[in-house]
Amino acid sequence: MLYKAKNPHGGDIYEGGIRLDFSANTNPMGMPESVKQAAVSSLEYADRYPDPYARELVSSISTYHGVPEDYVLAGAGAAEMIYSYCQEGGFKKALMTAPTFSEYGLALETTGCEIIRHYLKEEDGFTLDDGIIAHIREAGPDAVFICNPNNPTGKLADHELMLEIIGVTEDLGAKLFVDECFAELAGGRSLTEFLGSCSNLTILRAFTKNYGMAGLRLGYVLSSDSEYLKGMSERVQPWNISTPAQAAGVAALKEKDFLSESIELIKRERIRLQEGLKDLGLKSVDSDVNFILFKGPDDLCDRMKEQGILIRNCDNYEGLGTGWYRIAVKLPDENTELLRTMEEVLGKE
Amino acid sequence: MLYKAKNPHGGDIYEGGIRLDFSANTNPMGMPESVKQAAVSSLEYADRYPDPYARELVSSISTYHGVPEDYVLAGAGAAEMIYSYCQEGGFKKALMTAPTFSEYGLALETTGCEIIRHYLKEEDGFTLDDGIIAHIREAGPDAVFICNPNNPTGKLADHELMLEIIGVTEDLGAKLFVDECFAELAGGRSLTEFLGSCSNLTILRAFTKNYGMAGLRLGYVLSSDSEYLKGMSERVQPWNISTPAQAAGVAALKEKDFLSESIELIKRERIRLQEGLKDLGLKSVDSDVNFILFKGPDDLCDRMKEQGILIRNCDNYEGLGTGWYRIAVKLPDENTELLRTMEEVLGKE
Repeated sequence: MLYKAKNPHGGDIYEGGIRLDFSANTNPMGMPESVKQAAVSSLEYADRYPDPYARELVSSISTYHGVPEDYVLAGAGAAEMIYSYCQEGGFKKALMTAPTFSEYGLALETTGCEIIRHYLKEEDGFTLDDGIIAHIREAGPDAVFICNPNNPTGKLADHELMLEIIGVTEDLGAKLFVDECFAELAGGRSLTEFLGSCSNLTILRAFTKNYGMAGLRLGYVLSSDSEYLKGMSERVQPWNISTPAQAAGVAALKEKDFLSESIELIKRERIRLQEGLKDLGLKSVDSDVNFILFKGPDDLCDRMKEQGILIRNCDNYEGLGTGWYRIAVKLPDENTELLRTMEEVLGKE
Repeated sequence: MLYKAKNPHGGDIYEGGIRLDFSANTNPMGMPESVKQAAVSSLEYADRYPDPYARELVSSISTYHGVPEDYVLAGAGAAEMIYSYCQEGGFKKALMTAPTFSEYGLALETTGCEIIRHYLKEEDGFTLDDGIIAHIREAGPDAVFICNPNNPTGKLADHELMLEIIGVTEDLGAKLFVDECFAELAGGRSLTEFLGSCSNLTILRAFTKNYGMAGLRLGYVLSSDSEYLKGMSERVQPWNISTPAQAAGVAALKEKDFLSESIELIKRERIRLQEGLKDLGLKSVDSDVNFILFKGPDDLCDRMKEQGILIRNCDNYEGLGTGWYRIAVKLPDENTELLRTMEEVLGKE
C-alpha cells in the first residue's frame, strides 16, 4: 500500500502503460526552454535553502500584474493556496457552482464548512447564469468560490456578471475567491484591476497550466487584504517554494510570446477536437479554453486506458455523473491520435 | 512588505551582501553531481504533474532502510512532515527537550497543544540525561519529541537511553517522534530496526542535510502505524513532492560513498573548528555532527554579518538565550575564513 490521499484528479501517468495523457490540463506546448534552463541553472545553488520570502519571484509577479508587492502571496502550487485560504477563513458557509474544481470543497471540508451548490444546467451549456446573484443573497454565505473559466466545463463567465458577484459579496461582507488559473489560456478578462478597490476579492493564479510547470509546484494569490494574506502565509511551512520553482517562475513571466502562441494553438485545436467529437456522435460542451467536457459511454475511460490513453473521468464532480469526461487540448498529432483511438474504441461497441 | 511568517531559522542568504553562510546546517560537500543530474533530467517531463504517490521514491526509501513500503510517507521537506504529524495527532500535551529544533513547538502551537520542556544543562554539555524518563512518567504526555542528534547542540543521545524512551512512551500509550535528520552525518545509530515492534515510534528523515538538497524540499517519515501515516497523508496537498525532488531523492540514496566521505570531512573539520573557537577564547559544546553551538559576545552575529558571514543566532531557542550561536561545519577554506574573520571581529573589541 502506498500512501497519499487517493488522487482525485487526472494526470497520474506513472502507473505504467500510458502513452498519452489527456487527463491533465496543462499547456500543450509544455515548458518553455527558457523556463527549463532557469530551473537547471538554479540547481547550482539548490544545496542551500530556498529564499524563504521568494523575493525575486514576488517582485516579478507584482510587476507582471501591475500590483503592489504586498498584494502577492506565492506558494507551492495552487492546491497549497486553496488550502491555506480556506483554513485562514474558517468559513461557516461557502457557495460555489456545481460542477467546479473539486479542491475548494475538499479544502473546506477539512474545516467543517457547509457547502451550498449553485447547479449549472447542462441545457445552458453549463454557463454561469445570473441566478447566482439571487442565490448568494438568499444563502448568505461568508465565502463564494468561482472558477473562471470553470473546470471541468471550460466556460468563461460573463465579465459583467463577475462584477455583479463582486458587488453582492461586498454587500454581504463575504469573501470572494476567483480561480483564474486558466484565465490566460482562455484569453479571458481578469479581475486583477479590481483588487485595489475590492478588498474581499482574492484571485488564484498558477504557473502549472500556462507554462507547463505542473511538476515544479508553483502558484500564487493576489489580494489587497494584507492581513488575510499574512494569515495565509503563517499556515504554510517555511521554505515552501523550492529553488527551481522560484527560478522557473521568474523566467516564465517573461514568456509573453509563448503564451500568445499557446492561445492560438489551443483555439485552433479545440475547434478541431470539438468537431471530431461531434463526428463521433459525442456531445461536448462549447469550451473557451484548453480542455473539453463531453458525454460518452460509461466505460469509455477504461477502454481508452487499455489503449494507453488517459482521459479524465468526471463522475466524481458534484453536478455531473457517470458518462461525463474531460480531455485536454494537446498538440495536433496527439489530438489526431486521440480521435483515431476513440473512433476505434467506439467502433468496437 | 513581503509575506511569509518570519523565517525563524538560518540560511536566508538572499537579502544581499552575504559571502558565506554558516547559519544553515547542510552537507558541506553540497549536492552530489548524480543528484543534480537526476534533477536536471527530470525537468524533461516536469511539464506534467509529479507522481502523486511518489512510487519510485517510496520504493527506494523502503529498500534503503530495509522496511516495507507501507512504513514510508514522503513529503515536501521535513517541515511538512512535522506539521502533518502534529496535526494528525491533535496532541494535548507534548514533551520535548530545551533546547531543541523549534519547528515541533511551532507546529504543536497551531493545534493548541501544551508543551512540557525537559531542560538540558549547560554544565552537562546539553547531553540528554536519564532524568527524562522520570520526567515523561510524571508529566504523562501523549507525545514525546526527541531530536537525535539534537539541534542546535549537535549531541547524540545515548542509544540505551533512547531504548528506555521507547519503553516508557509505549507504557504510557504515548507517541514518540524521533528526528534523525542529522543521524547519518553524525554516524549515529538509528532506531529504524525498532519500527516493526514499536508502532508508537515515528522517525523523521530528510534529504536536505545529507545530500545538500535544501532547495528541493524532500523529507520523509518512517513508522509501522499505517493508520497514522494514512491520516498524515490526507493532511498534505495533492502533488506535494515536485518532480525534480522525487528524481533527486532516488539518485541520492545510491550515493553511499558521498555520505561516508562527508562524514570523514565533517569529523576532521569539526575538530579543527572547535579548536579554533577555543583559541579565540570561545566556549563551545562538544558536537557529534556538522554544526557547533558556542557562546560569544552579544553582538557577534551582527558584526559577522557586516563582514558578509551569516552565523545562526540561537537566542530564540527555548533553553538558551543571548550569546549562544551555531555554526555549520563547512569546507576547509571556508572554515579557515570563518575563524580568520571571527578573530578580526573579536580583536576589534
